[in-house]
Amino acid sequence: MALIVQKYGGTSVGSAERIENVANKVAAFRDRGDDVVVVVSAMSGETNRLIDLAKSIQSPPDPRELDALIATGEQVTIALLSMALKKRGYDARSYTGGQVRILTDSSFNKARILAIDEKNMRTDLAAGRVVVVAGFQGVDEHSNITTLGRGGSDTTGVALAAALKADECQIYTDVDGVYTTDPRVVPEARRLDRITFEEMLEMASLGSKVLQIRSVEFAGKYNVPLRVLSSFQGGPGTLITYEEEGMEEALISGIAFNRDEAQLTIQGVPDQPGVAYRILGPIGAANIEVDMIVQNTSADGSTTDLTFTVHRNDFDKALSVLKDVAAELGAREVKGDTKTVKISLVGVGMRSHAGIASTMFEALAKEGINIRMISTSEIKISVVIEEKYLELGVRALHSVFKLDQAPAA
Amino acid sequence: MALIVQKYGGTSVGSAERIENVANKVAAFRDRGDDVVVVVSAMSGETNRLIDLAKSIQSPPDPRELDALIATGEQVTIALLSMALKKRGYDARSYTGGQVRILTDSSFNKARILAIDEKNMRTDLAAGRVVVVAGFQGVDEHSNITTLGRGGSDTTGVALAAALKADECQIYTDVDGVYTTDPRVVPEARRLDRITFEEMLEMASLGSKVLQIRSVEFAGKYNVPLRVLSSFQGGPGTLITYEEEGMEEALISGIAFNRDEAQLTIQGVPDQPGVAYRILGPIGAANIEVDMIVQNTSADGSTTDLTFTVHRNDFDKALSVLKDVAAELGAREVKGDTKTVKISLVGVGMRSHAGIASTMFEALAKEGINIRMISTSEIKISVVIEEKYLELGVRALHSVFKLDQAPAA
Repeated sequence: MALIVQKYGGTSVGSAERIENVANKVAAFRDRGDDVVVVVSAMSGETNRLIDLAKSIQSPPDPRELDALIATGEQVTIALLSMALKKRGYDARSYTGGQVRILTDSSFNKARILAIDEKNMRTDLAAGRVVVVAGFQGVDEHSNITTLGRGGSDTTGVALAAALKADECQIYTDVDGVYTTDPRVVPEARRLDRITFEEMLEMASLGSKVLQIRSVEFAGKYNVPLRVLSSFQGGPGTLITYEEEGMEEALISGIAFNRDEAQLTIQGVPDQPGVAYRILGPIGAANIEVDMIVQNTSADGSTTDLTFTVHRNDFDKALSVLKDVAAELGAREVKGDTKTVKISLVGVGMRSHAGIASTMFEALAKEGINIRMISTSEIKISVVIEEKYLELGVRALHSVFKLDQAPAA
Repeated sequence: MALIVQKYGGTSVGSAERIENVANKVAAFRDRGDDVVVVVSAMSGETNRLIDLAKSIQSPPDPRELDALIATGEQVTIALLSMALKKRGYDARSYTGGQVRILTDSSFNKARILAIDEKNMRTDLAAGRVVVVAGFQGVDEHSNITTLGRGGSDTTGVALAAALKADECQIYTDVDGVYTTDPRVVPEARRLDRITFEEMLEMASLGSKVLQIRSVEFAGKYNVPLRVLSSFQGGPGTLITYEEEGMEEALISGIAFNRDEAQLTIQGVPDQPGVAYRILGPIGAANIEVDMIVQNTSADGSTTDLTFTVHRNDFDKALSVLKDVAAELGAREVKGDTKTVKISLVGVGMRSHAGIASTMFEALAKEGINIRMISTSEIKISVVIEEKYLELGVRALHSVFKLDQAPAA
């Protein structure tokens, strides 16, 4: 008998039929004696419909009123799911963010949770009720309705699990777990039974969009065991947790990649203190987020080359800023390429094992793939390569690190 | 400069365009210096859509969850109207029933208002804001969302006006006021400039569905001047208020009628104490509402006849009950007729004027209309006649009481 928080996204509750399906899943946990708190999103398409309605009247819509408007989406779902549970003979009670009292700051459209009052939920759980909570929303100290921003229902789920000290927070999605890499690229990709918070953060930030990054950070911070499962199939999903001592860890947990990278290089910049700042300062000031940065000193030591990557959508703007900077600094040349991608090996196991990087580089070299940039962190090695080699590179790495096989116990 | 509460129904806010139209109307009152509190319903069709959604999952839906669900309809409208006002440069703020704190009892789907906290609304009005409140909804003492039942937005408007001691409560509908009778029956029907609460209650209960009866009772009880106006045309509408001393009153304010009457008669019942109860008790026990009741003693004095009317939908059930009763009481005969209608003259003026009834009966006799039943109250005379004479009778009465002409000042 455990206390479980379950979160179902918009696709999982996208129709009356799917809501009935969620009720069946919840009922199964009740039947085995678990206490269940369910967090739900708006039915798929509903939030966009409401935003369009708002924009037809005011664009951009007033932030306070937009939150009051779109918060209705989750309120519809909690009522419907509670009805579906009651029909099955399971007592249930719906809660808006304000009714739980999920207290947030007053940053409409992107509020942060400050505190959760778990009193009413505890009373209902003790009375044998399923507690059904609207994700994505809260209230500020003046009872204004706030929302947490897109994907905020994951955060609601983790925050409730933390407040209630739940045994597990289950995030139901349309995939059945976290994979060693994207199965559309590598058919042999394997579902991971478990992954650490740190690895998941790296995977998520690299484009494995299974979970919202903020909710993973939150779960890690409050040590909430997080499980990713499918709403539509069975299976144990993937447990995201802390690395356990003595646990046999895989060297590499997964391979993430990002197709949206664009590369910019400024060459022959007179090398002097503060040059990196003078180049990247204006980029940041133009609201462009920089991902990887690599700096090399040239052979003669008097000039330097700096290469960085940005999102492809920002490439044109970044190139224009960089040309101005180059003129100012007396740099020799500015180059750019939008046909680049980033591949990253992620794994806490690489902390204690040498040779991962060289194995990676060798595998890519064997396939004739030229590496443009390299960047490393404690649990990640990233390389930037030409876009056309993406699939080849990912498959080669998946194979050389034997990710299709479960690690030895 | 006045404090005005305005209520706009579902048709008036049925699309983004119509919400913009409402914003224009509100803005005009702000421009002349009035403080405005606006109460809105759900966009037309929305409440039914939500109820259908609920029924597709649970039928009948759980009452608490149904209220949580349908309360979203008004929440959408308040947000959109506030946006439309802000776009025009008028500061505005939306309030759900819970945010105002419209405290109700816990009778889900048909809650009654217990108290209204006007503190936040007063603060906003003092700051020059338009206060936009969701009609039809409140919260009970445990913060459960409740609704007031169909048409409850009128009640919200009147209750807010009473709490704020507003100068006027304006109910915007799709008609431009209260008429002497239905203009579809009598083309000469005239819009009334004013009508008393008592008259309006009689008109409303007789099928003039301009206002919800409960809101008129409420307005009368708290002496809130109520005005019915059109959302789509201009004009002063009809003011519903108390009879004023020295005011020249018309004899008759209007003619109401009800097409849904069915008549039942039990004849030759041995006359003894308690016979009316023994006949009507089983009808009430069968959940059938009885409208008019007339009892006559027969010529020989030993038996009595009793006639009453019910809604046509209840006729078959009532007839069956009555036949059982007749057998029990040894009555001679049971008769019924569904082709009957009721016409009523309404007017506080008839209190102090004799001869209204005889003028009425004479006018109907002249047209060859047989009167089946008569019932009178202080400000109303009702007759039941054959259905086919409805239009003829209403027109004859409208003409003989000169309702097409404004009363002399």
